[in-house]
Amino acid sequence: MSLVLDAAAQDLLFREARTANTFTDEPVTDEQVQAIYDLVKYGPTAFNQTPLRVVLVRSEEARERLVSHMAEGNQAKTRTAPLVAILATDNEFHEELPNLLPHFPQAKDMFFSERPVREQAGGVNAALQAAYFIIGVRAAGLAAGPMTGFDFAGVQKEFLDEDHSPLMVINIGKPGEDAWFPRLPRLAYDEVVTTV
Amino acid sequence: MSLVLDAAAQDLLFREARTANTFTDEPVTDEQVQAIYDLVKYGPTAFNQTPLRVVLVRSEEARERLVSHMAEGNQAKTRTAPLVAILATDNEFHEELPNLLPHFPQAKDMFFSERPVREQAGGVNAALQAAYFIIGVRAAGLAAGPMTGFDFAGVQKEFLDEDHSPLMVINIGKPGEDAWFPRLPRLAYDEVVTTV
Repeated sequence: MSLVLDAAAQDLLFREARTANTFTDEPVTDEQVQAIYDLVKYGPTAFNQTPLRVVLVRSEEARERLVSHMAEGNQAKTRTAPLVAILATDNEFHEELPNLLPHFPQAKDMFFSERPVREQAGGVNAALQAAYFIIGVRAAGLAAGPMTGFDFAGVQKEFLDEDHSPLMVINIGKPGEDAWFPRLPRLAYDEVVTTV
Repeated sequence: MSLVLDAAAQDLLFREARTANTFTDEPVTDEQVQAIYDLVKYGPTAFNQTPLRVVLVRSEEARERLVSHMAEGNQAKTRTAPLVAILATDNEFHEELPNLLPHFPQAKDMFFSERPVREQAGGVNAALQAAYFIIGVRAAGLAAGPMTGFDFAGVQKEFLDEDHSPLMVINIGKPGEDAWFPRLPRLAYDEVVTTV
């Protein structure tokens, strides 16, 4: 084996982990979310910009508002998942750079003074962090159901502000009955990796 | 503890893993890269689009061409890392969708007929896969040094084509002497996570 990570962890995070479409009633606690964050916050981002922000949708009222913006095929599972989180990009992440990159606070103005640059960089780096977050959900023994099938403008207006762009919505919980479809194919190594 | 993943795996993938700036001479083999891919290929993407493509820069000639496009501060480590990989987005990923999403081949034309839509979705989902790849490098007991400080147009022209956009360049290997700077701060949970 070329991997150092033990086989059980490989299975937990990648091989047996699946995108869940149904969930049990078991709650997902704030302590679990904090443990997930405290693990995955260390995942690297460019300039340590860490632009990901998370909104946990806990109240029934907020849940119904969110469901109304989801694509029809995502509504039932978004309504019934133990926890739903909105992942978003903070397009004003540069304001935190002097704290996050204390040896090079000039980065804030040298590289990120323009909003379109921040939106581009923030989007990529928040997506990296979204992937770390999905891995973290699995590390907590939970299943993640990430979704991009929703009205982005509607979710932004209802739950965020003009400085925060929705990235995805994730259902989180223990997988329920018939939680997943058969595993979809993946590209072969030679279709993805070339050498020069 | 709220996490199921064992502590050694947490350390390997997140807590003790660091972005490396120096490396030992120990080679990174194709077998290791294949093992990494065969693990992280299972990470989820929207519509299973898996748009990430990887170019391994193995020849001395290609390495020098790549170094010439790196920002000055990234040149020395890009020159000396055991392996350098260019991660890119395939903006024509939709051509593979009938194979990757066999129960819904219409997705190719229903959602991804327009190039700007593909560039947007492909960029986000390739970034998710780049994060899985970084985790995979660490799962192989190696350190990753992801970099976005390079001439994107130059790297695209030299190593890719107009259908593939560079996402990042990653140095890969065993960490060398003084491989990393002190750990940078992270945002506190309450600065990142809110509840509604």
